[in-house]
Amino acid sequence: MICKAHLLTIGDEILIGQVLDTNSSYLSSVLTGIGVSVQGKSTIGDHAESILQELQQLWKTNDLLVITGGLGPTNDDITKKVLLEIFEDHLVHHPPTLERIREMFRAYGREINDAQYGQAMLPSACEPLANALGTAPGMWFMRDNKVLISLPGVPYEMIGIMEGVGLDRIRAQFTLPKIYHKTLLTMGIGESYIAEKIKDIEEGLPGTIRLAYLPHTAGVRLRLSCTGEEIETVRAVEEVMQAMVERLDKWVYGFNEDSLPAVLLSRLQAQGLSLATAESCTGGNLAHVLTQVPGASHTFKGSVVAYHSQTKISLLDVPRHIIDTYGVVSRETAEAMAEGIAHKLGADMGISTTGIAGPGGGSKDLPVGTVWVSVWLKGRVHSELFRLGEQRTRIIERATMWGLLEAYRLVKNDIL
Amino acid sequence: MICKAHLLTIGDEILIGQVLDTNSSYLSSVLTGIGVSVQGKSTIGDHAESILQELQQLWKTNDLLVITGGLGPTNDDITKKVLLEIFEDHLVHHPPTLERIREMFRAYGREINDAQYGQAMLPSACEPLANALGTAPGMWFMRDNKVLISLPGVPYEMIGIMEGVGLDRIRAQFTLPKIYHKTLLTMGIGESYIAEKIKDIEEGLPGTIRLAYLPHTAGVRLRLSCTGEEIETVRAVEEVMQAMVERLDKWVYGFNEDSLPAVLLSRLQAQGLSLATAESCTGGNLAHVLTQVPGASHTFKGSVVAYHSQTKISLLDVPRHIIDTYGVVSRETAEAMAEGIAHKLGADMGISTTGIAGPGGGSKDLPVGTVWVSVWLKGRVHSELFRLGEQRTRIIERATMWGLLEAYRLVKNDIL
Repeated sequence: MICKAHLLTIGDEILIGQVLDTNSSYLSSVLTGIGVSVQGKSTIGDHAESILQELQQLWKTNDLLVITGGLGPTNDDITKKVLLEIFEDHLVHHPPTLERIREMFRAYGREINDAQYGQAMLPSACEPLANALGTAPGMWFMRDNKVLISLPGVPYEMIGIMEGVGLDRIRAQFTLPKIYHKTLLTMGIGESYIAEKIKDIEEGLPGTIRLAYLPHTAGVRLRLSCTGEEIETVRAVEEVMQAMVERLDKWVYGFNEDSLPAVLLSRLQAQGLSLATAESCTGGNLAHVLTQVPGASHTFKGSVVAYHSQTKISLLDVPRHIIDTYGVVSRETAEAMAEGIAHKLGADMGISTTGIAGPGGGSKDLPVGTVWVSVWLKGRVHSELFRLGEQRTRIIERATMWGLLEAYRLVKNDIL
Repeated sequence: MICKAHLLTIGDEILIGQVLDTNSSYLSSVLTGIGVSVQGKSTIGDHAESILQELQQLWKTNDLLVITGGLGPTNDDITKKVLLEIFEDHLVHHPPTLERIREMFRAYGREINDAQYGQAMLPSACEPLANALGTAPGMWFMRDNKVLISLPGVPYEMIGIMEGVGLDRIRAQFTLPKIYHKTLLTMGIGESYIAEKIKDIEEGLPGTIRLAYLPHTAGVRLRLSCTGEEIETVRAVEEVMQAMVERLDKWVYGFNEDSLPAVLLSRLQAQGLSLATAESCTGGNLAHVLTQVPGASHTFKGSVVAYHSQTKISLLDVPRHIIDTYGVVSRETAEAMAEGIAHKLGADMGISTTGIAGPGGGSKDLPVGTVWVSVWLKGRVHSELFRLGEQRTRIIERATMWGLLEAYRLVKNDIL
């Protein structure tokens, strides 16, 4: 059975381009992942009449409608009113939601006001979907075996509801085809080079398996998807995956939801090694992506963001003559930084970055985008020079990912 | 006259969530900017029949349709075929386009192939819109004073066409109203509290002005929009804005595209002050958001991410007895960190964070989400205790924003 779905985003702020709609992209991805067939998406403004018309139209040709936005406590949020009209329903007081809102505010030491009280008034026909991260719960409506889900527009609240109860509830309601996905995560190799290297594997794919190339900041992801009976499907996908891993090993750092910082930290932890970073052009982003990983503190000792030469000397013990002789953006300075931070914080491994993130500061020899990355591991040291484009935020992101990848390669013993 | 527009994005890759649709967000923003009223947007897959139906439907209620996608040489010009059907048209050879494609390929030392030759075959009814950055030109169709524009899906090509000829062509075709937007950026106060504080202003808004609440990681944005003659419009919006600023002053950090890190850095730079950060629970994110701002190095000296107590002592000169007596997560430690980093890096201002980002490490007295933020400015010091929820990434983000806001308040002299 095919479950046809449509995603509706509500909000003037999206129509005027002030906010990028990442919600519908997330929903597309997770719904497709569980076998729902997303037929279309649309966005309309905060006008009750248009929302009503659009919903009535969409209800005819879809099994599942997912609406995001328009549930906040202020006056411009009107989704609930429209839903009352469509389902000829009325609001009732929902004590568990009120209690949860009260608790949330209590944790911040505040009392709730009328607007927040209103968030606990829900259409009687709906089944609330708990929102652990905000005041407005999701709402699940059913009629004629069709489902309408209304979700708040704040991305992390919406995601929290879907991962908490929403996706399970959809799986339980509809008979969805079994789809098996597995994604290979690579970094440091471009789409067309991958295509060359796995040409024969791609051409020999069985008809049931689809391969998608998904370029991403942190490299190219390769997703295999297969529909069919569970055991055969998994076996077929795993076989192709194995072949791709062998071919691309040097650039592979994980699968599915793995992140490079998490993979590096867990590899280090497994080997009983600790880590510290010394950052110039990445400006703290290496430390930031590492400390976003829960439990990072077991392995990660800390970082020095040394934006000025004097800081490199005073906090990282980079010898002044190295900076004077080779310059701040040089292999020698990068290596002294990596070793310096490891010694300073008593870590087994030090990662350093030094480069020119722009927009100013470039020269003919060292244009904007020039970055040295160095990794020191118990006396061994590995460095690479990169040219990472011209855009400041991209240079910072890419230098960060390269720092992590070089460290991962070093600890895997792929290099040196 | 109102020009009602709808944006249609074509592509399976967007429906399954592989690609984030940034095109429609760009188009929304630039079209709104010139006074077009974007009524809705939608996305459908690469199926001729659905595209046809959708376009016929949209044609009835809009003055302008903008389609992106489906024009590349590999996906069989599905959009072009549909347009031929709608306009009962046929393809003709368009020599200037062919010549331009030839020239492009000549620059790479290549001859064009059949697929590229096909790109120069255009519907006879359309006016081509030159694409300087790719092979498929945009196409402009008119009937009954309504306009349909078809654009390639590659973002920089699409943008190139719009900025090159598209926007001017739309301006010339329609009589567009003047619209003026201004957005107030606040932090540290929730949507419903703002609504309470500006209730009378909101109720007294002239009919021409609309107010929208836009919640965002970095706080709530309040957008005023007004249509009308230029001078009166600007004056009316500025008057309401002024009243809102006065009411919300404590939480306001800027307007429109301002970011809190940039606002703080430029305020510090204007006063000739330098900045350094000492981060425990924010793990480098303070340094990261500050160094994303171009020119940060003029003001920002660096950061120490001190994830372990020993690092706080050795790199930040936090006295051991302070940590032993008050604990790592305490006002005293936060203040010693802020002062320590300022001295260590010779900065005028030090911002510090220490707290429990979770998921582990919480206790009854100091639950996950407890964060001390301290700001030291030339001997004056200000500290605040926060409870920032339970989710690690949110705690890090919020502690970062609070660190910046408290610093901004201190330098504005709002506190102390």
